[in-house]
Amino acid sequence: MLTNIGSDRVKSVRALSRRAVRERESLFLAEGPQAVSEVVAHRPDAVQNLYFEALERTGHAGTRQQAVLDVAAENGISIREVSHEVLVAMSDTLVPQGLLAVCRPIDVRLDAVLDENPRFLVLLTNVRDPGNAGTVIRGADAAGADAVLLSDSSVDIYNPKVVRSTVGSLFHLPIVAGVPIAVLLDRVRAAGLALLAADGSGDTLLGDIDLARPHAWVMGNEAWGLEPDVTAACDTVVRVPIYGKAESLNLAMAATLCLYQSAGVQNRPGIR
Amino acid sequence: MLTNIGSDRVKSVRALSRRAVRERESLFLAEGPQAVSEVVAHRPDAVQNLYFEALERTGHAGTRQQAVLDVAAENGISIREVSHEVLVAMSDTLVPQGLLAVCRPIDVRLDAVLDENPRFLVLLTNVRDPGNAGTVIRGADAAGADAVLLSDSSVDIYNPKVVRSTVGSLFHLPIVAGVPIAVLLDRVRAAGLALLAADGSGDTLLGDIDLARPHAWVMGNEAWGLEPDVTAACDTVVRVPIYGKAESLNLAMAATLCLYQSAGVQNRPGIR
Repeated sequence: MLTNIGSDRVKSVRALSRRAVRERESLFLAEGPQAVSEVVAHRPDAVQNLYFEALERTGHAGTRQQAVLDVAAENGISIREVSHEVLVAMSDTLVPQGLLAVCRPIDVRLDAVLDENPRFLVLLTNVRDPGNAGTVIRGADAAGADAVLLSDSSVDIYNPKVVRSTVGSLFHLPIVAGVPIAVLLDRVRAAGLALLAADGSGDTLLGDIDLARPHAWVMGNEAWGLEPDVTAACDTVVRVPIYGKAESLNLAMAATLCLYQSAGVQNRPGIR
Repeated sequence: MLTNIGSDRVKSVRALSRRAVRERESLFLAEGPQAVSEVVAHRPDAVQNLYFEALERTGHAGTRQQAVLDVAAENGISIREVSHEVLVAMSDTLVPQGLLAVCRPIDVRLDAVLDENPRFLVLLTNVRDPGNAGTVIRGADAAGADAVLLSDSSVDIYNPKVVRSTVGSLFHLPIVAGVPIAVLLDRVRAAGLALLAADGSGDTLLGDIDLARPHAWVMGNEAWGLEPDVTAACDTVVRVPIYGKAESLNLAMAATLCLYQSAGVQNRPGIR
């Protein structure tokens, strides 16, 4: 069991809370039972090391932890027991809840996504808040979107707050990151997808748009929306209707509504 | 201009960040240009005192502040200029952005809501996270719901974090708070509304439910959902479909999807 909170290993894991270190080392953290359970189950190849603090076996948390450790062992993942103090010292969060995984990047190349003939995607540009980005990824997963694409001007998907707020969805569907927005728009359009800008300024209502053809939702910064040249590059600017007195919806709510509208149409019999 | 950060007035305003003080004094805080602008415009009767730190008049923030102060003056609201230090000392947030209002409670009686023959409502029970509650109120406003009802086991709607996360919607639609869940369910049912429990365990899909008749969405705790006796008291348990691998949606996303489904049906020609 690792108990030395001053060890180089503990320091090097903790340092992954910083973006520069994540990029230099090509590693990131998945923390807590939900994220660790999902990466171990869906992307075991991405796990470099799994650390756990042994929990009381009889309780719910202990049972859940044991199930995660069993799957990890079956998948040949390197597992190390650590003390509570070491786990806290390694973690970005105050409550790591017994499990932490050091992972290799899981993002995929844009080509790999487009080669699969995606039906609908979401493309985020200039999204800066980790919680918003993570919640959009979770919503895209729930809606069955084929991938999430993030421009290089967006928050780092390996930020621990993004990882936590995806609640495991980061490991469920393909994610593309770090590509300039102009390249994303050109390539997605060239692959035959309609580009739908989601923006409160749109003159087309969400319910009035054809979502049976392949398409990508393009969503911008949580405060100031999409840049004019991005909106201009899209085929249609779509607005979620506001029925009451609210000025707007937040990014995650608007994205979830758009993606579920797509899901409802794409999952009708006869489509694809 | 008030400049003494140690004054009784500053202390008594700052103390409104605590629930016990809010309840004793029957007052709460609205902070920042968005919330203050909305309370001044929509519920000027609720504003006891408006405090502002003069901003540079030529910038966007200064222009916006002046517009709020003009509306407040027209509505006969008591306005006091304060120093930056006083505003920060009064506020629950580190960045009050020049405006803070001390307000009287704006929640309404359940009778008042039910007497208006509501078409659709949302009823929250055991919702504890201020950001979730506030975001649901914002979504209910955007969807044009007739009211939001919170059981007495839910977060205080006058918690500064709730007020901020509603982004002004707290002042746009009727809010009922502090009523036991059993009373809410009985009274809403007696008023002729269908009770629709939103829960991942539901066997009826969101798209399959009749939303043309008056109804109330009943939503529970963000982590553990609805209590069994609440679910049992509802007419239907409705599930938002999950098309991908996500285990669930968060409360605010699920509520927004349900409420927008209601809005889409209720705003069709021929309904009501």
